[in-house]
Amino acid sequence: MRARVYVTLKPSVFDPQGRVVAEALHTLGYGDVRDVRQGKFFEVELEGDDRASAEARVAEMAATLLANPVIESYRVEVL
Amino acid sequence: MRARVYVTLKPSVFDPQGRVVAEALHTLGYGDVRDVRQGKFFEVELEGDDRASAEARVAEMAATLLANPVIESYRVEVL
Repeated sequence: MRARVYVTLKPSVFDPQGRVVAEALHTLGYGDVRDVRQGKFFEVELEGDDRASAEARVAEMAATLLANPVIESYRVEVL
Repeated sequence: MRARVYVTLKPSVFDPQGRVVAEALHTLGYGDVRDVRQGKFFEVELEGDDRASAEARVAEMAATLLANPVIESYRVEVL
């Protein structure tokens, strides 16, 4: 069973990496780029095939290890 | 107009970060985790509202700046 966890900085948190990417895109001629935010994601391969329990376990992993809930939010998707 | 670019290492490329995350999850008691691959994503805010041209431009940005096509693959999603 496979799940994905998408981790993004909360909207109120400044994202310097995204800022740099936006500036690099402007330099490359993409002047229509207003803003860029960068995030990360994890593809987790799990044993077992119970979707509900997989989703709950992966959400737990996200909250304890994959994301920092103080400044980041996450979304879990079971494939 | 908003688009997302998901960048992942190609399956044949070793992912040491993902490996470390998988080991950390094992240590935390998640023994049912078989494998973890880590990727990144970008949320790009663009001017204009032509979906097709936005998708083409963002795919171009992905190929030139956001991903390294030698070892990474990417997927563009216009929201």
